[in-house]
Formats: sequence, structure tokens, C-alpha cells
Amino acid sequence: MDTTSDNLLIIAASEQDSNIYYASGFLAPDDFIYLKTGGKTILLMSDLEVDRARLQSKVNEVLSYSDYQEKAKQGTNKPNGQPSGQPSGQPKYIDVISALLKERGVSEITVPGSFPIGIGDALREAGYKLTIRKEPFFAERAIKTKEEVLAIRTTQIAVEEAVDDLFDLLRAAQIYDGYLYHEGKQITSEGLRKRLHINLMGKGCIAEHSIIACGVDACDPHQVGHGPLRANEAIVFDIFPRSIETRYFADMSRTVVKGVASDLLKKMYDTVLEGQELGISRVRAGVSGKAIHDEIVALFEERGYKTGRVNGRMQGFFHGTGHGVGLDIHEPPGISTRDWTLQTGEVVTVEPGLYYPEIGGVRIEDMVWVEETGCRNLTTYPKFLEIA
Amino acid sequence: MDTTSDNLLIIAASEQDSNIYYASGFLAPDDFIYLKTGGKTILLMSDLEVDRARLQSKVNEVLSYSDYQEKAKQGTNKPNGQPSGQPSGQPKYIDVISALLKERGVSEITVPGSFPIGIGDALREAGYKLTIRKEPFFAERAIKTKEEVLAIRTTQIAVEEAVDDLFDLLRAAQIYDGYLYHEGKQITSEGLRKRLHINLMGKGCIAEHSIIACGVDACDPHQVGHGPLRANEAIVFDIFPRSIETRYFADMSRTVVKGVASDLLKKMYDTVLEGQELGISRVRAGVSGKAIHDEIVALFEERGYKTGRVNGRMQGFFHGTGHGVGLDIHEPPGISTRDWTLQTGEVVTVEPGLYYPEIGGVRIEDMVWVEETGCRNLTTYPKFLEIA
Repeated sequence: MDTTSDNLLIIAASEQDSNIYYASGFLAPDDFIYLKTGGKTILLMSDLEVDRARLQSKVNEVLSYSDYQEKAKQGTNKPNGQPSGQPSGQPKYIDVISALLKERGVSEITVPGSFPIGIGDALREAGYKLTIRKEPFFAERAIKTKEEVLAIRTTQIAVEEAVDDLFDLLRAAQIYDGYLYHEGKQITSEGLRKRLHINLMGKGCIAEHSIIACGVDACDPHQVGHGPLRANEAIVFDIFPRSIETRYFADMSRTVVKGVASDLLKKMYDTVLEGQELGISRVRAGVSGKAIHDEIVALFEERGYKTGRVNGRMQGFFHGTGHGVGLDIHEPPGISTRDWTLQTGEVVTVEPGLYYPEIGGVRIEDMVWVEETGCRNLTTYPKFLEIA
Repeated sequence: MDTTSDNLLIIAASEQDSNIYYASGFLAPDDFIYLKTGGKTILLMSDLEVDRARLQSKVNEVLSYSDYQEKAKQGTNKPNGQPSGQPSGQPKYIDVISALLKERGVSEITVPGSFPIGIGDALREAGYKLTIRKEPFFAERAIKTKEEVLAIRTTQIAVEEAVDDLFDLLRAAQIYDGYLYHEGKQITSEGLRKRLHINLMGKGCIAEHSIIACGVDACDPHQVGHGPLRANEAIVFDIFPRSIETRYFADMSRTVVKGVASDLLKKMYDTVLEGQELGISRVRAGVSGKAIHDEIVALFEERGYKTGRVNGRMQGFFHGTGHGVGLDIHEPPGISTRDWTLQTGEVVTVEPGLYYPEIGGVRIEDMVWVEETGCRNLTTYPKFLEIA
């Protein structure tokens, strides 16, 4: 996809947009300009960021925005030779970008589908031809290098240690009147989440919306969970922090019961686990993600777990089986209703779930690394339902 | 700006885009669709999020994406009556959006400048007329309600408590051979930052790139700082966490020396403080942010602090004086080279700085709340240079 003949332009804040971070290696809170042309990578940076970008980015050239403001002021910087900046004041943003593009002889630009339409329209008006490239903008982002897998695994180690700490707490917890207590205090979703997040921060990882959800809460897969946790009910833990240092995520879900699970819940847990193991067994290069997802859907149907709307609320298995993990928590490829062929080197989650308000929610999630003939499970954490 | 006759469309992930969070009150990690038409606010949500959105969002209607997939399959959903979805497979994203727009009789749409160009182009191709509204998309976001100011102040309380903890540590620290030690361990930027972030997480606030930078590090205003802190040198602390609960930021900078500051540094600190106090004294509704910024720039020049490139590196005062704070850490209005008239109810920082590698970096930052006749300082933390 990314041939050297393409002129690539991204304008975004790298703390929010992983493409510009991936391309530049530079982290900043505000929008900046990345250009790749003639095989060279270029950043155009404000006075505030230009020196730091020279030290920290991995691009070939870091240019000063104020230098190009000057060039834009002086010159005919559009392809058609008409500057639109007022001679008296500061030139417009678009004229500054144009000063750079013109200097480099660029008139056709490839931008991501997420490129801001305001700037895109202004570029077109200034005579530039834009080609929109849908995600994945950098197809190579899906294929993880050894360093990237190491980063993901390092984040995952923090996840497993932090989950261990929570499960140890649940092991030590006491049940009273159906609720859980530890060292004399009631255990809540919020309390465990805070403990988890502080623990992860101490390991250099940021988590914000970790899911610790019990009972009906857990039947809404992105509900983070609130209030006291209850004994003998399924509690879904879905933990997906990002490393501050490497910016790579990890993602793991486990479902446990403190106390005793009902037979219905046990059967459902076993079915989800069977579906997850089936999914993992199917992951290898060349396989369709959709085919894996469909097979798990069919298995759940066959076992009698129907999916659909009941009393106005979704039940069953109504999310994708998995997603890529890297600089974004949700990135290509998918294992879902959308067709996507898995490739060697991708890191994807396998996380089927079943959700019925009368029984509870169950989700089990590992991250796997796609290989030619199968996959390697990057998650080593054990799977069990009951915590005595 | 936002008249009820406008049809507003935003497509973004609210964990990253504050406009869609502000409009919907719903927090999600992946893109979703917000539409305002006929004075009604609408979300179009995936099966995964639809039930949670009904519980948690503040819009008038939450619609199911899969319902509109069905409508798109069945129908002529473009204004010109031509469906582009393949009858055999799932309809395209654009056809699903179009099914909703057509049902509501919408053919002209206002979108933010940050709207993804890929979807924007597809909407135009499908016959919709797009109007791009630059930031501020919601002008009212700049004017904080009482509840918003309370949220910002609550985050600020966490900042002040956490900075107190760090300064107490510095007070207790010992100096040996020019470096700082606490309880037998050398004090580093990284060590203090981790302590700060864990402390803030315990107060329900997320910080990631807090600046604790000493010496030359501190002369690059967005350099977070690395390595051992040194005695008798300026250390810049710039702390700007976001509350997990309210999502509102706070932002404060202080500059301190553990030990004794040089006369040059003392003079520079006093000049920055003078500039900051001047800036705060000028903030009131109706005043130009640029005029305030220019006055501080002129003061620094007059005191002999020149700004520009020396040996290829920026020196002096080369960033804006201030920025709005709210759901984004940097949002309108600005107090900078760009013209912007301050309005009652805005919350802005006032944070001039001076940076010279031979002397060090100094920045002092408070957050103020703009009123008719002046401003209220939301920052109560004292300002001092030396910590004995």
C-alpha cells in the first residue's frame, strides 16, 4: 500500500491518533503535521514542540512552522500561485501547509479516512488532489514486529499481576448476607477498580474504564460495573491498560464467581470456554475472521444460547469475537461479522461472551499472535469460574 | 450558532472527541453517530452499546444500528433513491447513516471541521449538502456552567493535594553532591512522576504526561523530564490530570528550587511572576487574549528577556500565555498570538514562562474564571521559588 511514490499527509494529535504516532514516533497533545514525500518523512512543528520533536521523533526532517509562516507570507504558495494569507496578519494554516507542499513539489496527497474535512476541503480549494485511504492507513501496523509483541506482552504481564491481586483479595473475602467483605469493608466494583488502577499505574500502565461488573451489570458488555459485588454471581473482569512507556495495550477478560455458581451459570461458562477454545484453535494465517466468528455463533446456537432482543434488550452473543490490539485497543484485524483474512504477525483477541440477565454475563478473553500454522497465546492467566 | 434549524452530525469516539461527549453525555471507545435534527438529539448505536446508551446518554432517542441496517437493506435510502448496499451482504456504513437521515428528512448537514473526510465525501456523493463548522463547534462549551466549574475545581483540589505531597517530599529531601535524596533513594523525574500519578489515581484523576523537569529539560516546555533532579536548579512542575468521573481537567504549573536559587534565576522567576500577575489582572470579559499576551511579551522584552532562536534552539517566551480548560486540556479560548475576545464564564490558564538553558526554565500557571469585571482565580496553591 505505502509505496514511496505516495505523498502521505496526516494532521492529528499523536496522543489521540495512533497513525501519526506510528509514523512519527513523536507524542504531542495538539495537532501537528506529518508529511511523507519522496521517501522522506517530515514534521512541521510549532515553536513550542520543534526542538523536542528533533530530539524525540523518528522522522527524517523536523521543520519549524514559524519558518513556513514566513515563507507563506512572502510567497505564492498555492499550486496556482495565489496566496490567500492577508499580507498584514499571520498567514492561514492552509497557506503554511501549502508553502511546505509547494516547496516539495507535492500536488497530489493521500490522507487517512479520518483526515479532518475542514482542512481537506481547504487543500482541495487550494488546488491539491486528495486521495482518501481507508483504514488500515498503514497496513503494516496490523503486523506486529518482535519489539511490538514484546511491548504488548510486557503490558500483559502487568495485567496478569494486577488481576492476581484482585483475585487474591476475593479469595480472602468473606461472604455475609450475599455480599462480599474484605478487612471489614464491603467490596464494590468501584473499590476494586480503584485498587486495580492504582496498582497498574505503579506498573507504568494506564487504565481508565476497566470492567468489573456483576450480575445484570455484566450483561451489558461495556458497562464498567457499579455498586457492591454479590456472592454466587458471575463477575466479569475486562482489563485493557496501555503502557505509558511503549503506548501498547494488552487486553484480557476473566469471569469468576465468589462462592458457588449455579448449574445454569456453570453450563454457560463451559460453553463460552468451549467457544473460546474453538476460536483459538481456528486462528492461523489465511483464515477468515468472519468464518471463526460464525462458527462460534453457530456453536452457541446449537447449545441453545439464542441471540436477539428480549424485552427490548440484547441477549446472547452480540459483539464481535475479537479485535486487533496494538497502539489502539481496538484496531484491525477483526474476528467478527466483517470479512477479514488473518495474517501472520497480527495480535488479536479471542473473546466470545454470553449474556442473559437471569443467569449473568460471561466473557473469556485471551490475546493471541497469529502464525502460519496456528497462533501463540500471549495470555498465560488461568481460567476458572469459582473462587472459594 | 447552534440554532434548532441546523442539522448537526458528529461521528467520533467520545473517549477521544469532546464534542460528541458534550452533546451526548455518553462515553464509548469506538466511533458512534450523533445527529441533532428538528431540535431532537439522536444516537445511532451498535448492538454492543445500544442498551448502555439508553441508560447513560442524555439524548432524546437512542436508535439501533442494526435496525437501520435492515432499513438500508430494504430501501431506497439516498435522497436520490439509489441504494448502494449490496442486496446480498450487509449494507455499507454510509447507507445505514443515510437510512436515518432520509427517514428524518435531512438533506443538509452541519459537521465539525474535524469530521472524517472519508465519511464526509461519501455523504456528499450520496447527495447530502455538508456545511463545515470550524471550532468551536459548540460555542457554548467555552462558557462553563456552575457544574462545570465545580468539576474543574474538584480536579484542581486533587492537583493541589498531589503537588503538596511532592513538595513535602522535596522539603524532607537531602542534598548530596548536587543531587537530591529521600529516604536513602535518589530523587528522579520518573520517580516523582510515578508517585504523583499513583496519588492522583487514588483521587480519581488520570495524569499521564505530567511535567517534572529540571535544568535544560525544563527549557523545552513540553519535555516531561528525565533522570535525577538536581539541587539549586529550577524544577518545573506542570500537572494537568482529568477526573475519571466528570472528565474535566485542571491545569497548574509551579517552578521550585530545592536549595538556593542563583540571582539570575531569582530575577527571572520574579519577572515571570510579574508577567503572570499582569496577565491575571488583565483578564475580564471583552478583553482580547492577544492584547494580554502581547503585553506580557512586551514586559519580558523590556526586562531584557529576548525571545528567538539561539544556536538553533528556541529561547525566551515562545508559547501562548494561556488556553481554555474543560473537557479538553487545550480548548478555546486562547490567550496567545491569535485574536480571541474573552467572555464571561470561560476558564483559561495564565501561564507565561521564560526558558534559557544557562539559567533554567520557569513557568507559573493558574486557572482563572472570567467575569464581567475581572476574573476569579481557581488556583489557591502558593507561589514560591525556594524549598529549603
